[in-house]
Amino acid sequence: MKVEIIAVGTEVLMGDIVNTNAQYVARMLSMLGLGTYYHSTVGDNAQRLKEMFDIGFKRADIIITTGGLGPTKDDLTKEVAADFFNKKMVLDEDTLHNIEKIFMKLGRPASESNKKQAYFPEGSQIISNPHGTAPGCIIEENNKVLIMLPGPPSELKPMFQNFITPYLSKYSSGILVSTIIRMFGIGESSMETLIEDIIKAQSNPTIAPYAQEGGLILRLTAWGKTKEDALESMKPVKEELYKRLGSYIYGEGDKKLDDLVCEALIKHQITISVAESCTGGMIASTLVDFPGISQVFSEGHITYSNEAKMKYLGVKEETLKAHGAVSPEVAGEMAAGVARVSSSDIGISTTGIAGPDGGTKEKPAGLVYIGISFKGNLYTHKINITGDRYKVRRMTTMWAFCYLLTLLKDHESA
Amino acid sequence: MKVEIIAVGTEVLMGDIVNTNAQYVARMLSMLGLGTYYHSTVGDNAQRLKEMFDIGFKRADIIITTGGLGPTKDDLTKEVAADFFNKKMVLDEDTLHNIEKIFMKLGRPASESNKKQAYFPEGSQIISNPHGTAPGCIIEENNKVLIMLPGPPSELKPMFQNFITPYLSKYSSGILVSTIIRMFGIGESSMETLIEDIIKAQSNPTIAPYAQEGGLILRLTAWGKTKEDALESMKPVKEELYKRLGSYIYGEGDKKLDDLVCEALIKHQITISVAESCTGGMIASTLVDFPGISQVFSEGHITYSNEAKMKYLGVKEETLKAHGAVSPEVAGEMAAGVARVSSSDIGISTTGIAGPDGGTKEKPAGLVYIGISFKGNLYTHKINITGDRYKVRRMTTMWAFCYLLTLLKDHESA
Repeated sequence: MKVEIIAVGTEVLMGDIVNTNAQYVARMLSMLGLGTYYHSTVGDNAQRLKEMFDIGFKRADIIITTGGLGPTKDDLTKEVAADFFNKKMVLDEDTLHNIEKIFMKLGRPASESNKKQAYFPEGSQIISNPHGTAPGCIIEENNKVLIMLPGPPSELKPMFQNFITPYLSKYSSGILVSTIIRMFGIGESSMETLIEDIIKAQSNPTIAPYAQEGGLILRLTAWGKTKEDALESMKPVKEELYKRLGSYIYGEGDKKLDDLVCEALIKHQITISVAESCTGGMIASTLVDFPGISQVFSEGHITYSNEAKMKYLGVKEETLKAHGAVSPEVAGEMAAGVARVSSSDIGISTTGIAGPDGGTKEKPAGLVYIGISFKGNLYTHKINITGDRYKVRRMTTMWAFCYLLTLLKDHESA
Repeated sequence: MKVEIIAVGTEVLMGDIVNTNAQYVARMLSMLGLGTYYHSTVGDNAQRLKEMFDIGFKRADIIITTGGLGPTKDDLTKEVAADFFNKKMVLDEDTLHNIEKIFMKLGRPASESNKKQAYFPEGSQIISNPHGTAPGCIIEENNKVLIMLPGPPSELKPMFQNFITPYLSKYSSGILVSTIIRMFGIGESSMETLIEDIIKAQSNPTIAPYAQEGGLILRLTAWGKTKEDALESMKPVKEELYKRLGSYIYGEGDKKLDDLVCEALIKHQITISVAESCTGGMIASTLVDFPGISQVFSEGHITYSNEAKMKYLGVKEETLKAHGAVSPEVAGEMAAGVARVSSSDIGISTTGIAGPDGGTKEKPAGLVYIGISFKGNLYTHKINITGDRYKVRRMTTMWAFCYLLTLLKDHESA
């Protein structure tokens, strides 16, 4: 079965919004093992949309549209579909009732244009939309299937997941299983060099590398008649990847570095405090984004000036004078200091030159020291980051969580 | 002139990456006043790409492709174009020389597949690519124009800006001028209700509202024969928008709330310190992202526990007991405290319930107090935010900058 995706909407056509729906739907179809050969975008124009249906159904069995189901006159996907298949538009009482209920809650009556959303091409299957007023619908006719979905991703995604995936599975001859392997501390090109032969030889599973927020991701996707078949095909390739890249791999699946660190801290009730200079609160903010972190995190300090480093963390004036604020010595005193004043198990610190100004030949922009004090031991790390101010700060935060995770894993296995 | 955009690449087709190029090119075309009626995506498949050229040139005068210019066998946009227009592929010595130079710098010879990038359909105009090894090219034939651009946005965008925009201007009969109006403190639907009639009546300028990072944006785009004409058409609509929405508008153009606050702080050399509970470093981190902020920002504290609030900021135990940590009283003492201990002009604080847990009936998740101490005066603000933990923290940060900006504007006009 060939599937084609058509985005309907002048806002997509004119570049007012990015068509992320096409990516989402394409990925879901690929997971279902259904082939997609074309995506198209067309504006809110009846004639051109009808022509798109014409072209699309010459080369595909199933068309999935996104958008054009709203209440305004511009929204005409269903109307054009009815015209294309020679059907009348008929009222669906259940949908009308739902729309009226939604507007009752909002304290105002549904307008005529809202009621338009309760009309569908005769005989179509209606897909309820718990996240908005526009239901989706499906027309099956002469071995052609037209699936019409709402445009807002927050409505489209749950509808696809809960209804379209099971609906389409009857057209799928197998299953695709996907795994994400997460890495940090290696660049994309170095990684590709290490596994060049595997990438070249890929067929089943396929291997797609991505850079994401300073880390790297390998997405392995295997096809099989069953889930077990797919996993079986994936196994030897995955083992080989771990053999070559194992030292950079920190996890699989959705959890990122900071999630794993926060989970481990809470699990072992290891308390942490932070003393940030160049990251300026980014590490603390990342910690605080994890629900329940207050069990192990109670305070942090942004000590941007030398005075603040001395006053709050007990960094010595002579250390600052002898080595400068951006030095392993100061990073160490900051980490030990914050652990001491807050009585926490871990103190972590950053001091560096975020740029674009402030660098020298000896200490260029992008030079950062991270200090970690853990149960009396002191570790300092030097990193050099190329990039703008935000990237230097973001990558420093990632490295901080990377070192923390290594430490916590060592602690777990000790 | 009608223009059509075709993305070439299996990675786009399968949903491995989002087609942001289509948005970028569409927006640029719209700025040039050139009509776009269709976007398409097709994989790395010669037959299907040729069919796309066939369909595209039936409905458009100009086709712009993105992608498929790389060194691998998969990359075949130029080859298919040569086939479509019945042309030979010929070597361009200059391009070959450039590619060899790039590889010399990398310390290895260019492979045969890299050299493939130096071949172009005979007679095509070659567009050099200072950001990569794949030049673009243009074929003009029988009143049809095919513009082939590289896929990586970092190569495509400068090429479009520097070469394609001037190239296409000969096909454009006027100019589009765009302005962005930035608002905060009003929801999208309330805003639309206030200017419903203006949105309905829009023709020139067009008005497009967007929500962005907690704020709202109105993009006004006017067409004119000249820039002055376009601005003239925009003027009355803009005035009316200011009349109705003025109290929510904080600026125009690219600068966001935090940029304006940091600029004003540095300009007037007003020092600031932060005491964050629920935002956990997000306000400090936003400040620190602004280059040069060290002139006015030297310290901040994340006082997540009650103990830390007392120890570092001098919040009184009886205040915490009487009103709880999430109260205007504690927010006020935190703000005054951090201004005092750091001797800064402004102290700003946050205390709230980020959720998802920790809320009560009286103090639900999303309840936040912001305190500001400014030259001896104390201000506290209560806000209620609906959304997940990240959104509560992010919106609190936005509100903090919004209150700061108001204060700084008052200070400037005083």
